[in-house]
Amino acid sequence: MPTLRVELFAGRTPEQKAQLAHELTQACVRVLGGDPSGVDVLFFDVERHDWATGGVLWHEKASQVPKQS
Amino acid sequence: MPTLRVELFAGRTPEQKAQLAHELTQACVRVLGGDPSGVDVLFFDVERHDWATGGVLWHEKASQVPKQS
Amino acid sequence: MPTLRVELFAGRTPEQKAQLAHELTQACVRVLGGDPSGVDVLFFDVERHDWATGGVLWHEKASQVPKQS
Amino acid sequence: MPTLRVELFAGRTPEQKAQLAHELTQACVRVLGGDPSGVDVLFFDVERHDWATGGVLWHEKASQVPKQS
Amino acid sequence: MPTLRVELFAGRTPEQKAQLAHELTQACVRVLGGDPSGVDVLFFDVERHDWATGGVLWHEKASQVPKQS
Amino acid sequence: MPTLRVELFAGRTPEQKAQLAHELTQACVRVLGGDPSGVDVLFFDVERHDWATGGVLWHEKASQVPKQS
Repeated sequence: MPTLRVELFAGRTPEQKAQLAHELTQACVRVLGGDPSGVDVLFFDVERHDWATGGVLWHEKASQVPKQS
Repeated sequence: MPTLRVELFAGRTPEQKAQLAHELTQACVRVLGGDPSGVDVLFFDVERHDWATGGVLWHEKASQVPKQS
Repeated sequence: MPTLRVELFAGRTPEQKAQLAHELTQACVRVLGGDPSGVDVLFFDVERHDWATGGVLWHEKASQVPKQS
Repeated sequence: MPTLRVELFAGRTPEQKAQLAHELTQACVRVLGGDPSGVDVLFFDVERHDWATGGVLWHEKASQVPKQS
Repeated sequence: MPTLRVELFAGRTPEQKAQLAHELTQACVRVLGGDPSGVDVLFFDVERHDWATGGVLWHEKASQVPKQS
Repeated sequence: MPTLRVELFAGRTPEQKAQLAHELTQACVRVLGGDPSGVDVLFFDVERHDWATGGVLWHEKASQVPKQS
């Protein structure tokens, strides 16, 4: 009955989510046993203005990127 | 102080959510005691392309539905 | 496919949780339709030293209760 | 490694979130020690039609506000 | 920066969790790109008396299992 | 109405949690306005064998620490 909640930056393609849901489920079944039908995966898109690391939102970090790279 | 987080497929009407919030709160009070004002209910709409069961996103399942039913 | 996460103070009896799981599920089916088998309810016990309201943990509040009541 | 999830009513400005992420992170470092880079803060906007207290959604409460105040 | 929360029945071995954390992380990197160091996986053990499906706690289901199997 | 969920390594003292709950609540009120009584803070202790970064559980990392530092 494992349920996985995946918080990730918004902007992934539907194909990436489909592939990731598949691979995460396979990993659960491989390691824990059980049937794939018992595994739920939920994706939560988080915008860069809603996620901070080190006290700085990621969209702020982006705008602080030095010019040369 | 119970707090309920309800993840459900997007697409419910405001009336359904209002009714469900009311009934979930009543159930908590009936079973746990306490005052309704201490019960919080939060709804999180999840799109079918963000929820997988058995490794397949629900919007993929929908498109795989056989024609006859 | 609704999934409900219920955070509540530790100390409820197994009978209360069983009853509450049943009633919450019934409410979901009644309001949203669908089959009970699609409803998951998870309980998370939270100790009073792990939950604060108004900046004060509930086990601190308890110890601040005036003597007369 | 603390990770904070903050559910709040939708409608805060980006400046408020940036400031709040900063202050929450500072509080963690001040009290728990460690480096700010180990602190994650995620914001989840919740609409008033998705949050109920006392069994009533907040956007219903708003429409029930008495005229005089 | 994906963060995965995995709710699963209590009782897995430390080796299973270590292996699962490794494989889930690999899946994220494979599908989303990025560095493994950006992936967090958190496990939350849920007891069978705290998880209901279809309105019945799993430890009740267990006790309802017919004798022959 | 902000609600904060704080996941942190197990082992903090009650005094640290009390202090942190207080400071997080103050930060919310300072930045968002509103009354402290509307702020909830919940702590979730996570053991080092239940949290992985980079695909490795933290209790494994600990045992891999080189001898010299």
